Amino acid sequence: MSNSVVIKKVMADDVRFPLKNGAGSDAIHTTPTYAYAVCKLITDNGYEGVGLAFTLGEGNNLVSDAIAYLGKHVQGKEINELMADFGKTYRTMMDDPNLRWLGPHKGVVHLALAAVVNACYDLWAKSHEIPLWQLLIDLPPEKLVNTLDFSYCEDILTRNEAIAMLQSKSSGKVRRKKILELGYPGYDTSIGWFNYSDEQVTDNIRRAMDMGFTAMKLKVGSAMAERDIRRAKLVREIAGDDATIMFDANQQWNLPQAIAICKELLPLNPYWIEEPTHPDDVEAHVRLAQEVPVKIALGEHVPNKVIFKNFLQSGCVSFNQVDAVRVGGVSEFIMISLLSKKFNVPVVPHVGDMGQIHQHLVLFNHITMDHPALLLEHIPHLKDYFVHPVNIVEGRYQTPQAPGMSTELKG
Amino acid sequence: MSNSVVIKKVMADDVRFPLKNGAGSDAIHTTPTYAYAVCKLITDNGYEGVGLAFTLGEGNNLVSDAIAYLGKHVQGKEINELMADFGKTYRTMMDDPNLRWLGPHKGVVHLALAAVVNACYDLWAKSHEIPLWQLLIDLPPEKLVNTLDFSYCEDILTRNEAIAMLQSKSSGKVRRKKILELGYPGYDTSIGWFNYSDEQVTDNIRRAMDMGFTAMKLKVGSAMAERDIRRAKLVREIAGDDATIMFDANQQWNLPQAIAICKELLPLNPYWIEEPTHPDDVEAHVRLAQEVPVKIALGEHVPNKVIFKNFLQSGCVSFNQVDAVRVGGVSEFIMISLLSKKFNVPVVPHVGDMGQIHQHLVLFNHITMDHPALLLEHIPHLKDYFVHPVNIVEGRYQTPQAPGMSTELKG
Repeated sequence: MSNSVVIKKVMADDVRFPLKNGAGSDAIHTTPTYAYAVCKLITDNGYEGVGLAFTLGEGNNLVSDAIAYLGKHVQGKEINELMADFGKTYRTMMDDPNLRWLGPHKGVVHLALAAVVNACYDLWAKSHEIPLWQLLIDLPPEKLVNTLDFSYCEDILTRNEAIAMLQSKSSGKVRRKKILELGYPGYDTSIGWFNYSDEQVTDNIRRAMDMGFTAMKLKVGSAMAERDIRRAKLVREIAGDDATIMFDANQQWNLPQAIAICKELLPLNPYWIEEPTHPDDVEAHVRLAQEVPVKIALGEHVPNKVIFKNFLQSGCVSFNQVDAVRVGGVSEFIMISLLSKKFNVPVVPHVGDMGQIHQHLVLFNHITMDHPALLLEHIPHLKDYFVHPVNIVEGRYQTPQAPGMSTELKG
Repeated sequence: MSNSVVIKKVMADDVRFPLKNGAGSDAIHTTPTYAYAVCKLITDNGYEGVGLAFTLGEGNNLVSDAIAYLGKHVQGKEINELMADFGKTYRTMMDDPNLRWLGPHKGVVHLALAAVVNACYDLWAKSHEIPLWQLLIDLPPEKLVNTLDFSYCEDILTRNEAIAMLQSKSSGKVRRKKILELGYPGYDTSIGWFNYSDEQVTDNIRRAMDMGFTAMKLKVGSAMAERDIRRAKLVREIAGDDATIMFDANQQWNLPQAIAICKELLPLNPYWIEEPTHPDDVEAHVRLAQEVPVKIALGEHVPNKVIFKNFLQSGCVSFNQVDAVRVGGVSEFIMISLLSKKFNVPVVPHVGDMGQIHQHLVLFNHITMDHPALLLEHIPHLKDYFVHPVNIVEGRYQTPQAPGMSTELKG
């Protein structure tokens, strides 16, 4: 049992990391700077909760500025008392009667919520001096569910159904803990950024395969479909027929374009095609899935559980790419993972956090919820900035051991 | 022909108006402050473009801060050249490669976009020294469509289809201009704020009817359905069987609650029930409409044309309440009005602008697009702060005559 750990002060940082030589570029995000709005929860015990929200640089200060409005809801709270019914605090923050107008549950204020919520889970795990995945998998179903907010999801999943679902999965937990030794399989997003030349892509594929990756992703969504098709064929050719390859259009097609180009990409046997069109357009994804037998992955721009619920209800999504630094942090990530489990759609997170937090969450999803252990995205560009960077050996994330959720940035 | 009117400087203001004695309160927005993030376009000719985005106070500075990022796209431009193909600039602002991550097309940055876009239309009308409605109804279809962005809507409405639709409506314009003399019918939202007592509601209904209003709205969405039902019956009783009454739940029911309470409200013959559940939840609205034959109104929290497109495709919406100070300003408002016309759903705007801008836009929608002239919401609480406040006589908005879109606030 931990001592009383009281949040004395809530602080916010705006940290930015310019990328070089086309790294991070895609069809729409042509000049990315990776940035974090950081929420820090200061205590008297030497523990510091660190929560992140991810942006692409410009406007990151809007998110860090918004943290202060939400921080007042956790300031002065003892972390274990706070987390005992965190779902209530989550809803209070999400439904602040004035700030809510700026979403609701989307955009800058929801990104700020992600940072605050993540800082709370980080501090909670640190107060027990264990990594987040361990805290989460050891929680009894009822205590876990107390950290969630079910509002607007009750038509699909009630609190009691969630508890029953978790209980029904408990018998297999010991078996599924084998993943902790095996390591969680990763895939490499950095082989095929949009601005990379064909030669760079070729070199990167070979290097990734040498490092043990068998799955990798190419950015498509070009104004010229020919470029997309040519580069997609190149990736299949270099990586070989056995490789798992994905194509990511970053929302750059309208529905007629998506239908036409997906038909051409299909013979290359992609594992998925990612963000084929606008992330709000559930109906366009449904029609695309009806027209072309392609497996659609999406979620990095889906802001909240309500829109995820609609996507899951529609049946058009094959891979759920929810990101805990886009939605309202770990709490909403878990809620969305539960909804996804109910619809039997695997969770394969987008990693705005570079996998630092999600390496914990996919272990939890697999062990506690019986989600399949498919793949976790790997983006290497910020590795040098984290105190405890992810450690990938032979293409597999090694299970993190430091207390918390691996979010501390070097000073 | 106007002279060259160049945008020399883009400025942003954060102005807030505390409300008193329960005015503006609803089931979730319990302590509203009305606020505007104001974009000002300064010229050398004495014209000043003034654009508004509406918020509820806290965090309004986030929106006014975001205006600076978007303002650079219009700074230095001559207003008539800018508006000649404004759709392109709109898309450039909407898809800024870094800022886009903070939405996309929703939340704080999209509210800032509304303010900038509205300031451009205001300056455009002022540069011709005519009110906005007149500028818009006199534009040839092609020039009007050039101010719009059709991205992600091409599956439903292309640029050429929009031009053809507008051309097909041109013959009735002369007849429909009669609305300019008649005045546009208003309805009164201020009779039944959530925190008002039953006695206040009763008094307000009588006063509204004395002023010539025959349509009025009550805030529901209480934690206790009994309070909602009791007050709804009171409104019907006091206003009489001939009155047009609406109930507004401000998103406070989940789907099972919405179904149960709408069934109880239905015998009171509401003209619509507004925002029965979460504004992102298209599927829940579809199921509600299937279960209860109620006419659903929504849109004040729908951030962009893509989600409106999905709502219209779903067939669950009877009244489209798009708000030009929530979506990306006049440009996206017109785009959404075109989509709505295609699906034969009337546009009855929510008025975060207190009707100042929308009085122009509903005249335009009726005269140019042949939308029916149903009702425009009236909220009186900020009337004293505008230089050219709306003027309602016998329940009808009198056609505004000052150049621009009536957005100047007193200094």
